[in-house]
Amino acid sequence: MHEPAATIEAMIFDAYGTLFDTQSILPTLEKTFPGRGDYLTQIWRLKQLEYSWLRSLTDDYRDFSVVTRDALRYSLATIGVEADTSILDSLVQAYDRLDLYGDALAMLSGLTGRRLAVFSNGTTAMLEALLANAGIRDRFERVVSVDTVRVFKPSPRAYRLACETLGLPPQKVLLVSSNGFDLHGAALHGLQTARIERNTPDAVRATIGVQDSIRPSAFFLALRSQLEALGSRPTMVVPSLTDLVNAIGR
Amino acid sequence: MHEPAATIEAMIFDAYGTLFDTQSILPTLEKTFPGRGDYLTQIWRLKQLEYSWLRSLTDDYRDFSVVTRDALRYSLATIGVEADTSILDSLVQAYDRLDLYGDALAMLSGLTGRRLAVFSNGTTAMLEALLANAGIRDRFERVVSVDTVRVFKPSPRAYRLACETLGLPPQKVLLVSSNGFDLHGAALHGLQTARIERNTPDAVRATIGVQDSIRPSAFFLALRSQLEALGSRPTMVVPSLTDLVNAIGR
Repeated sequence: MHEPAATIEAMIFDAYGTLFDTQSILPTLEKTFPGRGDYLTQIWRLKQLEYSWLRSLTDDYRDFSVVTRDALRYSLATIGVEADTSILDSLVQAYDRLDLYGDALAMLSGLTGRRLAVFSNGTTAMLEALLANAGIRDRFERVVSVDTVRVFKPSPRAYRLACETLGLPPQKVLLVSSNGFDLHGAALHGLQTARIERNTPDAVRATIGVQDSIRPSAFFLALRSQLEALGSRPTMVVPSLTDLVNAIGR
Repeated sequence: MHEPAATIEAMIFDAYGTLFDTQSILPTLEKTFPGRGDYLTQIWRLKQLEYSWLRSLTDDYRDFSVVTRDALRYSLATIGVEADTSILDSLVQAYDRLDLYGDALAMLSGLTGRRLAVFSNGTTAMLEALLANAGIRDRFERVVSVDTVRVFKPSPRAYRLACETLGLPPQKVLLVSSNGFDLHGAALHGLQTARIERNTPDAVRATIGVQDSIRPSAFFLALRSQLEALGSRPTMVVPSLTDLVNAIGR
């Protein structure tokens, strides 16, 4: 009854929210806009994703650095700030120095010998900067940016690019991601998928609470961290990147 | 220097958030899930839009009633509720009885003699139900659902459908919407656009406040009610539907 999955010949890692913590920009925003750090962190990330989808859907592609900047401009406008170029530059550059998640290094050690790539919405320049800052560039055979095909995840063209770059059929590639839309897009294209469930349903429910108001970070987790109700299921679900090493076996 | 816009030969009205108030479902949700009405209203609408974009982008279309139901399932799961079919049915049906905005009837009276259509992500059945409940079906020459082309706004195919249905070139059609993504998609396709600015930047800023936490409805307005930073500008901006009558002139 149970058909074994194809052998995993390469693993591709989502960057923002999977290897790198998009929440780690909060102190920078809080320092620049006191009292607004959490709010701005969440609305910026939400609009960044939204703009990536809208630009894809309207065939009006701009690269992820532009999308990130536009999303920041929108976010700042909601608190009455029309930011000048230097502030926008400085904050967008902070996106190239996001923290590596604490479980990434141990995982990379456990995956020595495997074919690994980064696969992200970010531009090649953004991704190379992130990986260099974290000191892990040499652990990846390839850095695959959707910028090559000028459309964002979860367009099928993005997943096709990743598989073709690695020279593998989709079923032999494992996408590792914490982003539900990414897992869904990959599953639709035939890839195997590993969901890093950093926030369990119980944890998210506890964070939401039952107050009249909600922390922006809690609303963000509610919106973004749970498995999407779009009809696909990940091949595997693990609580952290390090758990992935055992989950995929030898 | 200033080129006059083409004559407006027909006006197409967005439904959800423009003619009909998506927030009016809040009491129904509050009654079913006490203390959760605001939270569920906002996350449901946000996921509904997100799923419409993701399904369009993945070429995995399902109609808006399915999208609406999936978004509700996701939303309820975040508060630990796995709803049975009868609750889902009942809530999704409530989406067919949203309140007509108070300024819609006066506007429709002021536009007598003009060619008017509804143009929406909703299925024809959903839209006919909404319009019948509000008693305004006979004011519109056509009800144009994107379901015909199996893709959601702001895909260019949606705006092309609307113009072709009316038999008019885009520049002679005015899209009326409160939704920034809709205005942007229409502008990219060459339509004239009227933004109904129900929430000014000052009002939204005041609603957000400077607390550690935020009302879900305030976060929703911050995310959804402002002009998008995507590079297009509406042809006109008015504070309410009734102001539209004077804005478009004779």
